[in-house]
Amino acid sequence: MQISLTKELLAELRVWIAEGKDTSILELTRGLHPADLAELLNELRHEEAGYVYRLFDDEKAAEVMLELDEGVREKLLSPLTSREIAEELIENIDSDDAADMLAELPEQKQEEVIALLGDEEQASDIIDLLTYREGTAGAIMAKEMVSVNQNWTVAQAIREMRKQAEDTEHIYTIYVVDDHEVLLGTLSMKTMIFASASMRTTIKELYKAGATRTVHVNTAAEEVANIMEKYDLVVLPVVNDAGALVGRITIDDVVDVIRDEAAKDYQMASGISEDVESSDTVLTLTRARLPWLLIGMAGGITSAYTIGLFKITDRPEMAIFMPLIAAMGGNVGIQSAALVVRALSSQSVLDESLGQKLLKELRVGFLNGAVCSSMIFLISMVFHIELLLAMTASIALFAVILFASFFGTWIPLTLNRFKIDPAIATGPFVTTLNDIFGLLIYFTIGHYLSSWLDWLGWM
Amino acid sequence: MQISLTKELLAELRVWIAEGKDTSILELTRGLHPADLAELLNELRHEEAGYVYRLFDDEKAAEVMLELDEGVREKLLSPLTSREIAEELIENIDSDDAADMLAELPEQKQEEVIALLGDEEQASDIIDLLTYREGTAGAIMAKEMVSVNQNWTVAQAIREMRKQAEDTEHIYTIYVVDDHEVLLGTLSMKTMIFASASMRTTIKELYKAGATRTVHVNTAAEEVANIMEKYDLVVLPVVNDAGALVGRITIDDVVDVIRDEAAKDYQMASGISEDVESSDTVLTLTRARLPWLLIGMAGGITSAYTIGLFKITDRPEMAIFMPLIAAMGGNVGIQSAALVVRALSSQSVLDESLGQKLLKELRVGFLNGAVCSSMIFLISMVFHIELLLAMTASIALFAVILFASFFGTWIPLTLNRFKIDPAIATGPFVTTLNDIFGLLIYFTIGHYLSSWLDWLGWM
Repeated sequence: MQISLTKELLAELRVWIAEGKDTSILELTRGLHPADLAELLNELRHEEAGYVYRLFDDEKAAEVMLELDEGVREKLLSPLTSREIAEELIENIDSDDAADMLAELPEQKQEEVIALLGDEEQASDIIDLLTYREGTAGAIMAKEMVSVNQNWTVAQAIREMRKQAEDTEHIYTIYVVDDHEVLLGTLSMKTMIFASASMRTTIKELYKAGATRTVHVNTAAEEVANIMEKYDLVVLPVVNDAGALVGRITIDDVVDVIRDEAAKDYQMASGISEDVESSDTVLTLTRARLPWLLIGMAGGITSAYTIGLFKITDRPEMAIFMPLIAAMGGNVGIQSAALVVRALSSQSVLDESLGQKLLKELRVGFLNGAVCSSMIFLISMVFHIELLLAMTASIALFAVILFASFFGTWIPLTLNRFKIDPAIATGPFVTTLNDIFGLLIYFTIGHYLSSWLDWLGWM
Repeated sequence: MQISLTKELLAELRVWIAEGKDTSILELTRGLHPADLAELLNELRHEEAGYVYRLFDDEKAAEVMLELDEGVREKLLSPLTSREIAEELIENIDSDDAADMLAELPEQKQEEVIALLGDEEQASDIIDLLTYREGTAGAIMAKEMVSVNQNWTVAQAIREMRKQAEDTEHIYTIYVVDDHEVLLGTLSMKTMIFASASMRTTIKELYKAGATRTVHVNTAAEEVANIMEKYDLVVLPVVNDAGALVGRITIDDVVDVIRDEAAKDYQMASGISEDVESSDTVLTLTRARLPWLLIGMAGGITSAYTIGLFKITDRPEMAIFMPLIAAMGGNVGIQSAALVVRALSSQSVLDESLGQKLLKELRVGFLNGAVCSSMIFLISMVFHIELLLAMTASIALFAVILFASFFGTWIPLTLNRFKIDPAIATGPFVTTLNDIFGLLIYFTIGHYLSSWLDWLGWM
């Protein structure tokens, strides 16, 4: 039965909760996927969500809990005792999901929950997973997988696999290890199925040795994503310093990494400092946006100071092209920075060097600058703008575009060298700097051009 | 053997090509993954790439061809005859990859190649795939999969699967169909392995009926990505109008969709109009960037006109806060638009309505505006700015932030309603409009505030 989520369904559910119609609620929730249920619960008030949640059996409750928004999950978890979390929740989910969920709890509660787990293997897996730093292969890998010893026969392997497979939803590949758990190679399910006639063959004779791509537990999650995408892998084994197999990363874990990474870049580029969604509260949204606005303010005040310095009141007509100069500096800078940020995220060692990148950007800037500055000169002539002002605007625009091309390229490359996320460079930070530098260039050119023409006796 | 790509390796390869050392080249290329080989070939000159390419055997050549950058692939394909493309390339790759590659060829060559294919099933699969519109489930699905008839016995099924599995790299799930190819349900590899004792059981008795999530061939690729991500699916069957199974989409196909989508949003937000990379030529890069710069230019000229209209020369001190007002309008607008774009990309039917979104944004804008405008008033006082100007700046900033919040939210929602990609709204387009409206608001407030204070006899 496939029920689709609608606002009417949500409204009906609310009525049932208010009236305590548990049977109707259960009948509805039986037909829904945990991800859909989580979507419904995310929209309910906390007491309502808690009411529905308590009706679920342990397994369903655990699955729904995993899919909830973090804020809602926190509210639903807080009234639960450590024992309830251990026995009803954690024991029903995979070790990697369990570790993620426990990481959100206070440290003391984490320890209590782990101590109360019945399954010792799961407990040690979770403790192990909690030690890996966020954003590494270790932190996104799962411990559940199927591995067989090279000395086993097919019959033995199938028996063992049957046990391991209970915990493993998709098997993908069977890993072959030696007595020290060191990864030797892989065996496909196909080989197992189609070779299953000879039950006495040892795994050693069947498996494909070597050439298995692996990552270390400390490899960055982003690099894992790049490797899996480049080599079209659906699953990637993770090894420790000793080369022993400790987990595996599946492509669906990596989809999250890719989406989060893209969302983070986009968010930084648009000047939002925290991971917020439009469904968050007004206060959270304000807090996430104010920091970059204040940077913009500081930039605006610096611009105001710059304009005061150059005595705009002496040549007020210069104000006319200020917005154009500032906007173009910002636009060009963002374009350059965005190209560098994208290039860095899929960097290849074969790529051109820093110097080559800057040189190329300057050439692009030269072309764009030439087109734009000639246009502005011509348009100024058509609108009978004073020659000095037209020349100032035209030369300044060219200089600003060249400068912004250079600056927009240099900033993210430099941030990257100091291990700071280069995506910051596409946000208001660089735009603001480009605004200020743009005005400085414009006024300086205006000042010298007028003195020079004066000296030549042209004015 | 795992060889890592380095600039030295590339240089060495070039020397070997120049000296015709085929054995050395072959020895190197044997140890490299097709994706790595493609990365090397992408960096070589076309004649060099062609030289190396001709040394590969058919299967390797086909795999490398798939991984190349589109421009390089085009150059390597053009000297090949239709027969070579059919027999050496297409017959060695999956039907979905083959269809993608053929789609890049001129229509006449496409037809020639298809006519020359030896494998009739592959030919009809490719013809079928070529009919689906780009960006739909049909266009990204593969025809290779494992399906069994419900009336077969396990023994029969395994025999058939062995045949089908030759073409299918990862099986994931076995699809169960009726005599009309209508999808009835699924069967896991686990069930097949562990139930293989009773070879006479029919599939009907083993498989899990119904509840299999499917998508239609015409479902948008983006929606497919959302479904697979939401429900944690690694593979999703695709059906036609009659409910017959026509293909399957695996999570790795969807990773490409997600990455492309994110890259496109980022690119639009940064004002780049084509899908370019920093490794493209200077001319291509210039062409991709100029259009948005010209829009920025048009905005700047409109701003200049606006400033002229309000006779800046009468009150030149107003120029001081122009950059601040313009920049803040732009920043707030982009923040609002980015939140809407992200919300739209993962839209749920349960989400708040248009009116609620706008109302919330206005409340966020109210808070941010209040903070920023009080600050600017205080700072103006500290720097002894004239009271009228300080009041104008402060009130205008508040109004501009409110307006930009509204405008930044309304524009992407409206674009989306007219089926235009809302991500355009985070680019220079909205920033430019916000610049102009910001200045209009600033000057209007300046004008009326001064007349009003005049009337009150305060100035």
